[in-house]
Amino acid sequence: MSVRSYWGWGLADRFPDREGRQAMGQHATSLLGFDPPGIGDPVPLDSARVATSRIAIPPALTHVLKTDHDSRARHTYGRAYPDLVRGFFGDFGAAPDLVAFPESEADIAQLMAWCAAEGYALIPYGGGTSVVGGIEPPREKWKGVVTLDVTRLDRVREVDPVSRAALIEAGATGPRLEAQLARHQLTLRHYPQSFEHSTLGGWIATRAGGHFATQRTRIDDFVEAVRMITPSGLYQTRRLPSSGAGPSPERLVLGSEGIFGVNTEAWVRVMPRPEWRSRAAVSFDSLIRGAEAVRNIVQAGLAPSNCRVLDPVEAMLHGVRFDGRAVLMLAFESSDHAESEALARAVAIATKCGGVLDGEAKSEGPGTSSAAGGDPERWKNAFFQGPYLQNVMVSLGVVADTFETACTWDRFADVHAGIVGSVEAELRARGVPGKVSCRITHAYPDGLAPYYTFLAPGRLDQTALLDLWSQLKDAASDAIFRLGATITHHHAVGRTHRPWYERERPAPFAAMLKAAKRAVDPKGILNPGVLFGD
Amino acid sequence: MSVRSYWGWGLADRFPDREGRQAMGQHATSLLGFDPPGIGDPVPLDSARVATSRIAIPPALTHVLKTDHDSRARHTYGRAYPDLVRGFFGDFGAAPDLVAFPESEADIAQLMAWCAAEGYALIPYGGGTSVVGGIEPPREKWKGVVTLDVTRLDRVREVDPVSRAALIEAGATGPRLEAQLARHQLTLRHYPQSFEHSTLGGWIATRAGGHFATQRTRIDDFVEAVRMITPSGLYQTRRLPSSGAGPSPERLVLGSEGIFGVNTEAWVRVMPRPEWRSRAAVSFDSLIRGAEAVRNIVQAGLAPSNCRVLDPVEAMLHGVRFDGRAVLMLAFESSDHAESEALARAVAIATKCGGVLDGEAKSEGPGTSSAAGGDPERWKNAFFQGPYLQNVMVSLGVVADTFETACTWDRFADVHAGIVGSVEAELRARGVPGKVSCRITHAYPDGLAPYYTFLAPGRLDQTALLDLWSQLKDAASDAIFRLGATITHHHAVGRTHRPWYERERPAPFAAMLKAAKRAVDPKGILNPGVLFGD
Repeated sequence: MSVRSYWGWGLADRFPDREGRQAMGQHATSLLGFDPPGIGDPVPLDSARVATSRIAIPPALTHVLKTDHDSRARHTYGRAYPDLVRGFFGDFGAAPDLVAFPESEADIAQLMAWCAAEGYALIPYGGGTSVVGGIEPPREKWKGVVTLDVTRLDRVREVDPVSRAALIEAGATGPRLEAQLARHQLTLRHYPQSFEHSTLGGWIATRAGGHFATQRTRIDDFVEAVRMITPSGLYQTRRLPSSGAGPSPERLVLGSEGIFGVNTEAWVRVMPRPEWRSRAAVSFDSLIRGAEAVRNIVQAGLAPSNCRVLDPVEAMLHGVRFDGRAVLMLAFESSDHAESEALARAVAIATKCGGVLDGEAKSEGPGTSSAAGGDPERWKNAFFQGPYLQNVMVSLGVVADTFETACTWDRFADVHAGIVGSVEAELRARGVPGKVSCRITHAYPDGLAPYYTFLAPGRLDQTALLDLWSQLKDAASDAIFRLGATITHHHAVGRTHRPWYERERPAPFAAMLKAAKRAVDPKGILNPGVLFGD
Repeated sequence: MSVRSYWGWGLADRFPDREGRQAMGQHATSLLGFDPPGIGDPVPLDSARVATSRIAIPPALTHVLKTDHDSRARHTYGRAYPDLVRGFFGDFGAAPDLVAFPESEADIAQLMAWCAAEGYALIPYGGGTSVVGGIEPPREKWKGVVTLDVTRLDRVREVDPVSRAALIEAGATGPRLEAQLARHQLTLRHYPQSFEHSTLGGWIATRAGGHFATQRTRIDDFVEAVRMITPSGLYQTRRLPSSGAGPSPERLVLGSEGIFGVNTEAWVRVMPRPEWRSRAAVSFDSLIRGAEAVRNIVQAGLAPSNCRVLDPVEAMLHGVRFDGRAVLMLAFESSDHAESEALARAVAIATKCGGVLDGEAKSEGPGTSSAAGGDPERWKNAFFQGPYLQNVMVSLGVVADTFETACTWDRFADVHAGIVGSVEAELRARGVPGKVSCRITHAYPDGLAPYYTFLAPGRLDQTALLDLWSQLKDAASDAIFRLGATITHHHAVGRTHRPWYERERPAPFAAMLKAAKRAVDPKGILNPGVLFGD
């Protein structure tokens, strides 16, 4: 069995050797017009600098707590760019004092009570794939930090085929829960890019975005009921398709990033595998023209499963086009009926908006051999491969990161120009070549979520890379705030986005959230530092 | 201009004379197998018993406050059955001490500050159509109660045709906002049964359900941004199609029933009028068989705008069928393309589930004369006429009320049998003839919202009618709670549903809501008694 990388994205054995990395790096950076600054190797885990544990494991908790060097190093960071850089250079200075591996809700309640009694911070930890510092121990402010890894709670506990819902434990990763659902001929079909390692509980805590471009865009839309252990008792909601009784108790948990409790399981909406698939690609002069087509498609009441627009740079990086045109990738899917008419209508709208159909529209029905494989599967594999490239970039001294936002349609041209302009201005000011690219990933009748990637050569040095990243990230976040967009559409707030989030949310709402937290977590032990300051 | 009834639903001049009422009553009750117990007339407003005002209007607020008999009587109750009964018998013992008619946000902030300083309860009031005691002054617990009527804030302030959104003041009623949107060739298309008199602010406060059977089932789904004045300042969210930054600040306001502040305006998603319409009716042996068809239609990924099933009694009461069969009314609508294929697929599914197509499926496109009128408009008019019948029933000494719930598909047969059984058992125990009927109004992939009506002959006496109503209502609510359904799908909690809501919601969530309220409304002046006790 493959082991996860202790510092980078995904499985350790998928980090290429120097030759492979050099080839990958040069391919990508030559397209972007610069050379990788160098090449290095990660500091081995054995010699990594891991903060000393300040807590001894109490006898009553020896069955769930670990304090070894490896466990603590592996639970120090998420998988944001600065996490990768620090891990690569062997800096695990933020390591938790202990790591817990509970096997039951009783274990979790016991750990929580112990942390509250001792005054230790407790960090709920799912797949450890946060890209916003959502699980980083705030060592300096707490005399002890315990990270609680829920991945041993990973079963699909119950399936209701009539209502198409399943009760799934919070620590189940995407592949774990899909494998268990497949035995019932069902699937969740929620594919964040972190799918292979992230967990249902983490998705709920962070309002993770999936691959559906419309309708069920985030895990929010899949959740039927939640179950969370708080320091003040069990928070469990009824299984209901919808309720109008007071403010939604599920929506207060969605996006709460572990500050109220530990998600232990949830009822989620599932579905059969799609058997009908239709897809087409349409090219445009520019991303903005492609966006206009997306707007018209979504406002026509069509609900494509994929409605992704790649700008010319992304089209090139993904090997889709090299002629400077943007590409709209359209797909519809259904488990019940052909969607070829819907696709035809979407293509007609796209064409009316100045698009040119690329090749021909394709439709597949039940039994066609490619329905289970084919282009969508290839895209999915390439999509999941994406984060591995970031590991390579770190080892080459390149800053490479992504961020996303959302805004209404009327503002998109300004928001887009403002964001790209700010990051480019920052690059120019520092005399660094580099590139910002954009794709549109999710669409709504009243707006969209654009997703940005930036790459720039730095130096093979921890501080230099972190500084450059931080300046570019700040430029992007400042622009997002100034332009009235949101600091995140589906990457969560964590510690990284907090300064902008604090300005974006209404002041009375902040006071209400804080009061709600105090009501269930009076000692403030749960994931302190995300959403608001300690 | 017609004047609203001071005691009953809607416009005063639509209350028929004795002859008309007798005819209407006998028609309905003979179908149900009993006779109306008598006939009476409402106590005129002049001679109604209105609680004395305990507050003098301060000089600084003479421009917004009123204390006259009529204004206070008219702002005493919502339009629940017990409200109608008390109003009919001239009992306005719960009247507020003062009624405010602010014309600006500044007026509202000033009133709120004054109430907080004086220790008076402040009740946000939109259309006054609550059916759950959501706006009833808690006179006995407060030395003063001020009801704040927001209907002078009724403008569509801004329209964004690109994003299809509009900024609308909270006091705009359905017809007011639709008339203003129509100038921009846009419509909200949110039609609660209270549409003619209820307001956008009230819809947001109560999570009002609309006429869409799927997808945008409640106002929740239309809201892009909220703006609310709280005692601790302005609560305004950004215009965003979607955001993943922390728990949703809009969702905490949706369903908050005025306990945090006064909604003053909101950005909502609008659309062009549908130009393509398709519809069909399919009959079934029973409601349960019809429900099974609805489940299969919705789980197939189809999104009918109407997907209503009437049980045999409702089919009879609505004059649709008299042969003991249930009817599924299916409709699709679009502003962009024909939906006849979707309708055909839905009919095929319904037929496979044992349904029989009633007549033929009909489709209309742009320019067909009936697109703007026709059956859907007739249904809409009949739908809006519904509550007027309740006025008549009160005057005949008949208990007549409705309630709704929601549950997952796997539980529906049990939930339905349990609810109907409990109300019928209560009727039998009291030796009262009467009837419970059901229709399915909203559907989701994992469940549905059934809507119940009960009618039973009482006595033309305030206490007798209130007692009988209360026993039947309690029987229904107890059954809903016991069977794991929700106390309300779209009628809100108010004061009436509170005992069951308090048991339904998770205990930590209750503590969090209370803490959130204290954070913005430390004196607890805003609508005390809804959602939780004072």
